[in-house]
Amino acid sequence: MKAILISIGDELVLGQTLDTNAAWLSERLAGLGIPVVEHVTVGDDYERLAATLQRCGQDGEIIIVTGGIGPTEDDLTRQVVAKILDKPLVLDEASLKHIQELFHQRNMEMPERNRIQAMIPEGSNVIANPTGTAAGLMAHIGHSQCFVLPGVPSEMKVMYNESVEPVIATERENNIIVSRRLHLIGMSESELAEKLGDIMSRDRNPLVNCAVAKGIITLRIIASAKNGHDAKLMIKPIEKKLRDILGTNIYGSDEQTLADVVVQLLVERKQTLSVVESCTGGWLAKTITDVPGVSEVFNQGWITYSNQAKHQQLQVPNELLESYGAVNHDVCEAMAENARQISQSDIALAITGIAGPGGGSESKPVGLVYIGLSNSKSTEVKRFCFNGSRDSVRWRAVNRALDLLRNRLL
Amino acid sequence: MKAILISIGDELVLGQTLDTNAAWLSERLAGLGIPVVEHVTVGDDYERLAATLQRCGQDGEIIIVTGGIGPTEDDLTRQVVAKILDKPLVLDEASLKHIQELFHQRNMEMPERNRIQAMIPEGSNVIANPTGTAAGLMAHIGHSQCFVLPGVPSEMKVMYNESVEPVIATERENNIIVSRRLHLIGMSESELAEKLGDIMSRDRNPLVNCAVAKGIITLRIIASAKNGHDAKLMIKPIEKKLRDILGTNIYGSDEQTLADVVVQLLVERKQTLSVVESCTGGWLAKTITDVPGVSEVFNQGWITYSNQAKHQQLQVPNELLESYGAVNHDVCEAMAENARQISQSDIALAITGIAGPGGGSESKPVGLVYIGLSNSKSTEVKRFCFNGSRDSVRWRAVNRALDLLRNRLL
Repeated sequence: MKAILISIGDELVLGQTLDTNAAWLSERLAGLGIPVVEHVTVGDDYERLAATLQRCGQDGEIIIVTGGIGPTEDDLTRQVVAKILDKPLVLDEASLKHIQELFHQRNMEMPERNRIQAMIPEGSNVIANPTGTAAGLMAHIGHSQCFVLPGVPSEMKVMYNESVEPVIATERENNIIVSRRLHLIGMSESELAEKLGDIMSRDRNPLVNCAVAKGIITLRIIASAKNGHDAKLMIKPIEKKLRDILGTNIYGSDEQTLADVVVQLLVERKQTLSVVESCTGGWLAKTITDVPGVSEVFNQGWITYSNQAKHQQLQVPNELLESYGAVNHDVCEAMAENARQISQSDIALAITGIAGPGGGSESKPVGLVYIGLSNSKSTEVKRFCFNGSRDSVRWRAVNRALDLLRNRLL
Repeated sequence: MKAILISIGDELVLGQTLDTNAAWLSERLAGLGIPVVEHVTVGDDYERLAATLQRCGQDGEIIIVTGGIGPTEDDLTRQVVAKILDKPLVLDEASLKHIQELFHQRNMEMPERNRIQAMIPEGSNVIANPTGTAAGLMAHIGHSQCFVLPGVPSEMKVMYNESVEPVIATERENNIIVSRRLHLIGMSESELAEKLGDIMSRDRNPLVNCAVAKGIITLRIIASAKNGHDAKLMIKPIEKKLRDILGTNIYGSDEQTLADVVVQLLVERKQTLSVVESCTGGWLAKTITDVPGVSEVFNQGWITYSNQAKHQQLQVPNELLESYGAVNHDVCEAMAENARQISQSDIALAITGIAGPGGGSESKPVGLVYIGLSNSKSTEVKRFCFNGSRDSVRWRAVNRALDLLRNRLL
């Protein structure tokens, strides 16, 4: 059994909106052992949408369409499906009632325009949308079972979980795919390939592949077997081998982020943290506070963007700032040490650097970043030169700071 | 002339990595008047990649392929293109030299594995990769001119700008598409549709469509004409009409972010800003400092995550925190007012709320957020109830805080 995803929307083919639905659905379907073999995106274009649906109906066994079922005139998916099935659109009373109820809860009358969201092609099945106004639908197109869901990710996810996965899971074949991801920092893709040798050959089962994004490498181990238990057993020795070779460069697995791992280590070791940031401007704190429940270990942060703030808030000596500028080993050291003392935290992280695009010089180029880590025993400062855009420099600085803390906590 | 994009990588069809290249390329091609009619994603699968390239070669006039030209064994794009062209892969000496030079700069020997990145099918053209190791290539497949670029966004973008766009721009037809985006906050999609009426009909030129993402609506006006000048002239009256109807709900256009607009207003009005955040944990400051050159107006930020930090750093009275908790009108007011005074900034923004998933109660549910704005004349506090995940609540709080500031500055 294989799946094809179709995403619909001018905003997608025009490049205005990133499609996050396809990635989410792919991951979920892979977990059921159903590979997504193709993902097609087309605009709000009646003819092309019809042609794509018909082509994919001959190829896929499961098609999941997202988008094009909103209340506005550029939403055409229900109409196209009705046309392919050669059926009229009919009103689903329960869906209409649900939409009216949603508007009522917001103390509003349902605009007439939303009525279309309760209509489905005659003979197809409604997929209820508990959190939004657009009803989904299920129909057979060509050889495929086709599910139509809204493009709004939060609504789509609830509907997939409640109404699509249960249907698919009972019908799928006996060939399970299980995958396991390992995340690494501090290594280039080529170094990795050299270290791993033929572990990444294409013809293996489990297969190992890798993806790189902004300094983070993710290895994926993919095992195919008759059942999930066997597939998981096949993954274990490969994972062990990878861990033996790569050691602590592997920081986490599957859904874990670097911040998740760091927060978990802080909780386990009962250590509190504060941070002080200059060039990253709050991104380090934001990344740490992405983790739910972090208030147990995270005390506070400063964004000392101006020199005045570095001096007034963190007592960085003015002489230091005036003589050497804000991007400097000693300034970073003072920031980390004083942040720890003022906040009475066990550990403090400090970042100061030049994110660009302006502000660089020959001796202090864009991308120069100092990262400091202070605990009661010592304060360590590391110097980095990152490549890339303002965004890239800032993000790499955030990750390296988290990784420095991780290594200290290990 | 029309384009098809093909993105390659198991990490994409497995849902591990979001494809940002397709959106970026779509936007750029739209700007040249070349609509992307389809975007296909396939895995690192030799047969399917070959079939897709051959199918699209018959359909598109321009094909841009991203991904699959890294140094590892799962990178198959050059091999597939060579196979379709029935040509051997040959070494490009200049590319090899460039790769060796890049490794030399990092004080490393080029791993033997990277040699493949300097190879292209005989008779096709190299597309130089100034910032990375993977050489791109240009070849004719079917009726199409096919450009192969790396999947790494930063490298892909440089190569598109330097070597692909100049080639395409000289060859394109006389039918220009020009588009203009307007961004709105503080309005639902249905409200918008009701207000706009038939402006959004499908058969118009210019066409108006809309996309929604996390509380931000983007309207896109798309005009087709014989030349760019005419297309721009066609957009003007529609833009005026939309601005008349929607007023200050429109905060910006095209590439502008809400933070860009706010920073620009601060610079124009010579007003300095500091922020203090609790539940958003640095995201507000991060969003503001995303804007290059913001140091002119942004002084500093605090992330007062713990009550102790709210009291010690921002002098929020302990009685207040103890009696009413940290998520409270008066606490938010004190945070904003004291942040402004301590930092000696003209304006301060404060956010305190419950981002979830835990920590909510009946009287203070998850999603409850207070946002405060203080200037020398007054301090205003607004109460919001946001829906959705921790991420969604935090992001909406950040945007509403920025919008509050925008409206104050207007």
